[in-house]
Amino acid sequence: MGVVSPPKQPQQDRSRATRQRLLEAAVSCLAEHGWAGSTVSVVAERAGVSRGAAQHHFPTREALFTAAVEYVAEERSQALRALPAENRGEVVAALVDLYTGPLFRAALHLWVAASNEEQLRGPVTELEARVGRESHRIAVELLRADESLPGVRETVQGLLDMARGLGLATLLTDDRTRRDRVVAQWAALVDEALG
Amino acid sequence: MGVVSPPKQPQQDRSRATRQRLLEAAVSCLAEHGWAGSTVSVVAERAGVSRGAAQHHFPTREALFTAAVEYVAEERSQALRALPAENRGEVVAALVDLYTGPLFRAALHLWVAASNEEQLRGPVTELEARVGRESHRIAVELLRADESLPGVRETVQGLLDMARGLGLATLLTDDRTRRDRVVAQWAALVDEALG
Repeated sequence: MGVVSPPKQPQQDRSRATRQRLLEAAVSCLAEHGWAGSTVSVVAERAGVSRGAAQHHFPTREALFTAAVEYVAEERSQALRALPAENRGEVVAALVDLYTGPLFRAALHLWVAASNEEQLRGPVTELEARVGRESHRIAVELLRADESLPGVRETVQGLLDMARGLGLATLLTDDRTRRDRVVAQWAALVDEALG
Repeated sequence: MGVVSPPKQPQQDRSRATRQRLLEAAVSCLAEHGWAGSTVSVVAERAGVSRGAAQHHFPTREALFTAAVEYVAEERSQALRALPAENRGEVVAALVDLYTGPLFRAALHLWVAASNEEQLRGPVTELEARVGRESHRIAVELLRADESLPGVRETVQGLLDMARGLGLATLLTDDRTRRDRVVAQWAALVDEALG
């Protein structure tokens, strides 16, 4: 295989780049048009990929969007790991920001679609549980929270639930002013509760 | 009109009852099947009403579901007003319960649909703002919170955002055990913050 490997490499790279473009297009398509408006054709066109090439990578709509869920989950984990950890106020603000961007919006459309689409439900539920555990672990670390103390685990979980609720509120209106005030107050409550 | 009024009354009652049945069917249809699976025909069949009668009340899908949004909003307001107000722990638990039932689930499907459907967006956004203001007012009253104190308004708002986030988490899995712990801890934190 040695002598034929080098010429194959660029083709594999192209294939990976195509797959990546399709996943990114699937996520932004979901964020903008929701599940009903997201088909393989629409995503392929958005990615600048032929329908045939798209179907080579993802034979069905479910396969494409299940892979997109994984991609979103991985992106969100990376974004979480890249959060600044200067002080708790900044950490809380950065956690909330994660839930108000296009990645959360795409994830939200997937959750809602999965609640009615049998084929999406299993993979989306499983991935969501995984992302939830990872978000919690990273939040605990960034907030320097000591989970051996009573109530600390639930304080952090409630904070992530609040961030999710704020993200949901931004779906219809951008209420940034209100959000910033709530975040500042809850950051103070969390800081006091965590000691 | 005096002498013809009595015989007309039952017909008006029947018409009101039909409208009510259609709105209730629209809400449960949304909660179970989402926007994509909710058409006038499906709702009419569920309500046991002919398609013609349904179209007499609601000429379009948008008219039906916009009215259903209003109905959901009114139901949620009534549920809020009926909350027990024994102690703050119970109030917090009851507020969170409001966001985990079928009414919230229906509202969630509507918000997501409205974010992509031009004709739904206006009325849903407006009603959501109205329901949000009313939820806040009732929560302040039940929690006996003094909003003249700094941070109190934002503490209550954050609590409602947390309730919304917990509701969203129940869309795919019923995590009641986790939810009860988070609610107990944050009820204690909110109680302390409100003094």
